[in-house]
Amino acid sequence: MLITPGKLLANINSPADLKKLDQAELVQLCDELRHFIIDNVSVYGGHFGASLGVVELTVALHYVFNAPKDQIVWDVGHQAYGHKILTGRRDVFHTNRVYGGISGFPKRSESPYDAFGVGHSSTSVSAALGMAVANKYQGAEETQHIAIIGDGAMTGGIAFEGLNHAGVSDSNLLIVLNDNCMSIDPNVGALKDYLTDITTSRVYNQLKDDVWNMLGKLSMFGKSAQEIVSKVENGIKSALLSQSNLFEALNLRYFGPVDGHDVDHLVAILNDLKGIKGPKILHCVTTKGKGYGPAEKGNATTWHAPGTFDKITGEIHKKVYQAPQAPKYQDVFGHTLVELARSNPRIMGVTPAMPSGSSMNIMMKEMPDRAFDVGIAEQHAVTFSAGLATQGLIPFCNIYSSFMQRAYDQVIHDVCIQKLPVNFCLDRAGLAGADGATHHGAYDVAFMRCLPNMIIASPMNEVELRHLMFTAQLPRSEQAFTIRYPRGQGVIPDWKRPMEAIEIGTGRMICEGEDVAILTLGPVGNFAAEACGLLRNKKIHVAHYDMRFAKPLDEALLHTIFKKFTKVLTVEDGCIPGGFGSAILEFMSDNHYQATVMRLGIPDRIVEHGEQGQLYEECGYDTRAIEQAVINLLEPASLLK
Amino acid sequence: MLITPGKLLANINSPADLKKLDQAELVQLCDELRHFIIDNVSVYGGHFGASLGVVELTVALHYVFNAPKDQIVWDVGHQAYGHKILTGRRDVFHTNRVYGGISGFPKRSESPYDAFGVGHSSTSVSAALGMAVANKYQGAEETQHIAIIGDGAMTGGIAFEGLNHAGVSDSNLLIVLNDNCMSIDPNVGALKDYLTDITTSRVYNQLKDDVWNMLGKLSMFGKSAQEIVSKVENGIKSALLSQSNLFEALNLRYFGPVDGHDVDHLVAILNDLKGIKGPKILHCVTTKGKGYGPAEKGNATTWHAPGTFDKITGEIHKKVYQAPQAPKYQDVFGHTLVELARSNPRIMGVTPAMPSGSSMNIMMKEMPDRAFDVGIAEQHAVTFSAGLATQGLIPFCNIYSSFMQRAYDQVIHDVCIQKLPVNFCLDRAGLAGADGATHHGAYDVAFMRCLPNMIIASPMNEVELRHLMFTAQLPRSEQAFTIRYPRGQGVIPDWKRPMEAIEIGTGRMICEGEDVAILTLGPVGNFAAEACGLLRNKKIHVAHYDMRFAKPLDEALLHTIFKKFTKVLTVEDGCIPGGFGSAILEFMSDNHYQATVMRLGIPDRIVEHGEQGQLYEECGYDTRAIEQAVINLLEPASLLK
Repeated sequence: MLITPGKLLANINSPADLKKLDQAELVQLCDELRHFIIDNVSVYGGHFGASLGVVELTVALHYVFNAPKDQIVWDVGHQAYGHKILTGRRDVFHTNRVYGGISGFPKRSESPYDAFGVGHSSTSVSAALGMAVANKYQGAEETQHIAIIGDGAMTGGIAFEGLNHAGVSDSNLLIVLNDNCMSIDPNVGALKDYLTDITTSRVYNQLKDDVWNMLGKLSMFGKSAQEIVSKVENGIKSALLSQSNLFEALNLRYFGPVDGHDVDHLVAILNDLKGIKGPKILHCVTTKGKGYGPAEKGNATTWHAPGTFDKITGEIHKKVYQAPQAPKYQDVFGHTLVELARSNPRIMGVTPAMPSGSSMNIMMKEMPDRAFDVGIAEQHAVTFSAGLATQGLIPFCNIYSSFMQRAYDQVIHDVCIQKLPVNFCLDRAGLAGADGATHHGAYDVAFMRCLPNMIIASPMNEVELRHLMFTAQLPRSEQAFTIRYPRGQGVIPDWKRPMEAIEIGTGRMICEGEDVAILTLGPVGNFAAEACGLLRNKKIHVAHYDMRFAKPLDEALLHTIFKKFTKVLTVEDGCIPGGFGSAILEFMSDNHYQATVMRLGIPDRIVEHGEQGQLYEECGYDTRAIEQAVINLLEPASLLK
Repeated sequence: MLITPGKLLANINSPADLKKLDQAELVQLCDELRHFIIDNVSVYGGHFGASLGVVELTVALHYVFNAPKDQIVWDVGHQAYGHKILTGRRDVFHTNRVYGGISGFPKRSESPYDAFGVGHSSTSVSAALGMAVANKYQGAEETQHIAIIGDGAMTGGIAFEGLNHAGVSDSNLLIVLNDNCMSIDPNVGALKDYLTDITTSRVYNQLKDDVWNMLGKLSMFGKSAQEIVSKVENGIKSALLSQSNLFEALNLRYFGPVDGHDVDHLVAILNDLKGIKGPKILHCVTTKGKGYGPAEKGNATTWHAPGTFDKITGEIHKKVYQAPQAPKYQDVFGHTLVELARSNPRIMGVTPAMPSGSSMNIMMKEMPDRAFDVGIAEQHAVTFSAGLATQGLIPFCNIYSSFMQRAYDQVIHDVCIQKLPVNFCLDRAGLAGADGATHHGAYDVAFMRCLPNMIIASPMNEVELRHLMFTAQLPRSEQAFTIRYPRGQGVIPDWKRPMEAIEIGTGRMICEGEDVAILTLGPVGNFAAEACGLLRNKKIHVAHYDMRFAKPLDEALLHTIFKKFTKVLTVEDGCIPGGFGSAILEFMSDNHYQATVMRLGIPDRIVEHGEQGQLYEECGYDTRAIEQAVINLLEPASLLK
């Protein structure tokens, strides 16, 4: 089903077409763009609320500025659907986030209008500043550079680092603060309160005028100066305290707040700002989900990426299943954490802005003094957890695998070097699906495995995840403990079984065999188990070991395996260089075993978006690929170059 | 030579002893502590300016608070010498930074008074907040938590993330902002300007009082209200603009600025602050090097860590050499970058607060519009560099290896995924020496090697570094390029030789041989070359290959090697798990070679501080260790378990 665009939108194939419109037509265009997004997302799914919130801003930016010469950098990028539709991708927009289709985020290789690729938050100020400095140096002083950043993304440390540098540059940089009080979940932190204060109280100039007027009136009636002082003092004081401008303190000229849904006013103010040199910030107040009633009125977190829905009723489509379904790993985490925390008072939960994505919200609701959403602030989340651990508590710090990349130094410097027993739960480890390259948790085994004092485990299923979490909260020697698990569903509908301790660094045999040994880490073990079944039908007897730990390795088990097998297959949902398979090679080499080893996993290139199953197939480690790999291992000819 | 402490200091073996002093004696104690630090550092070396700047603050903190129950967290930690001396380490202080001696930074395993280990900057707010939240939850509400953070460290993004969370917590947290306008080099950025504004203009309350007084006087003389308004408006306006308080915007109660060298006032104000609940910040203005004339008046960067010096004359001792010396790698980088930039106008330089440490200051001086110190902001440095690269420029982003850990996501998300040709020069790669565990660049080969679109090289000497830098600025396919090199001197006094391009992914044979092949990455190749010479005297003929690239590997050369040799030694100045040797094992496995491989490098544990040579020996990859490893490889018996 192809979505039909409105009359104006149908003729806009690039921003040049947009510029041909009368300014008076922009309101209608916004309406058409909004409906095109609603129509598309209701049928095909995708991110929703964020793009609806910036429809007017998107139209105004492309009406006023000259992309791609002017550089428009969207922070995070899940709000850039309107931008994509207006910049030549309207007719392929239904392929958004689909395997082989366009990306859900801006991507330089997809369009010259996508000035900077995104997916993770808070990078736009730094990137746009780099562009602005480059163009100033190269003599293109008239080129405009615009970073559009949400109030949630503004809490990420790199955004502050960028502002600090921008404030002393004389570059042509406009930061548009898209303030909707939301990350995916409601935004948190002092900055949010501050922005709300600016927005809900009268603006600085208005307040100042009021005070002066009052002062004038009082004087005319002959009041003494001291009385005047006491009357105005409160007014001035509140101006000083609540209207003090954080951004002007950082030497950025501050404009706003303005209504981010008034396209005419936005066009006017952006035109004005074009003429003002130097770094500046425009504070726009917007509503996530604007213009679609159920999203505006409903739960903004639900409508961040609702899946498909009935656009008339606003009813979100839910799949109906005949049989009980296996839970999502994240929900097993969320419920199990609360279960453990009820009996172990030392357990605390920490999430950087992903309470619903990680299911930490379950604990936040039941134990609000023990579970913390610290904002989009992965670095802080890790060091804050280290601080908790120094006082004898047991933090479970849940961070998506790809976002953990942002707290890598904190893992090393604050946790591993200090031997603090912090637990890291890495959700979305492995290929993450439709979010694509920026969100795949491809590297965590490699980047964690090289660190001393680090335990790395991955459960093959939900029950194993529970066992690992139970194990992680027991007293242990001073090491960090990383548990990685993927996005999406597990395999055991009846998952809520009793927990038991697992000896750290021990794997388990899933299936005996003679011809080949398959060593797996994590849920890919289920593909291997299926492959073993298929191979058994072909009279090929494959042994399968769920190694469970990438570090420390189960050396006793490995000695058994390498004494018996000369053909070994390793399978992991992570990068091949430096990963779990590489750890097995290191064991082999250090112990002087010789065997033919084939390593399956994420290859050494950027993997794009698609359904997880499609990507496992593409990368060659789904059930069929494992089966084929075993067959190849058994045919020595195939190994010759 | 043991340094004799002053009369008061000689009796202080813990903060309990300090508390026995009359407050009137604290000035003398500060004087003694200052001299003890000067005496020690002038003889034994170490960090200097920072600790002198916080003598009064250190004495006041330990006089007022009850460590170790109260948690005192020093940010970065090179200013904590006074803290160490007052907390039981006076008589071992001469072993500071010496192999086997005490650490140059706070370290939890060294003393219960070291509440949190540091070395890298900007972690203290997050760590102390974690402690404060933990103690509140555990009912220890009276426990005090103090983070002492410099204005330079405050620019690091994690500090801002911590402030944003602190502002909405109701925890017992005191942040002491130690404002000396310096990182190691002069501090940069908008925050610095802002703090200077607060400090150099009159303080908020003073200004407000002045305005009110003026208003009162004018009124008494019957001026009209409008006249009054126009008179006071400028005063108020400057109060609003330059005195707007950034920290109060983040909901932290702000106190100060106060003179950080007035120990009596500090004691009074810290006592007051003890009684004020909730998160708060005390702004102390200090002078780096305070109390030692040459350091106060001289170049603060020089006196950050001057080495040994004559404390009377202030003359810094310089070693006198008979023969020309090899340069430091950092200077080869600094001079070569300028040399390249003179002929290639697209080259730009970026450093996060390490202009003198990286020798980027040479380019900053000669080409101020092309080389940028962006502050302690590694994340921003990388994404800013990516922004430069999108506009066709060629950034050389120089970051110490261990600090690059802090920009890991930016390397992946903003550079590798986007295939931007950014050049990373990782100084202090490998064991860094006296700075110890936090500063060793142990993991970069492992954490970079797992990334697609990443080239990783390390030069065996200065001339090779120049060749690699020359190669990195040539047009190339869309990949990032990492060049890692160690702290300290190279091996070629006559290093300024013509540069030439190296084919990416090619190694070179240093020495032919038959018995064993040694494969090295980087300057450790010089140890291997020496070992080969020693072994030749013993009639053992070892081939030596300087592989130069950890990624891509020189596969043609490796095929040659593995067709000839069955005994191979790999040597690297980096972690063994996942490192260069591991890459060689992967090549072997993928190409079905069988050989006995021994991998030398940094073992899988935290390595402490010492001279680099001592640490290479400890870790078993100096010349003697390589020689011995070859002998062991040739004696199969030694390989049996």
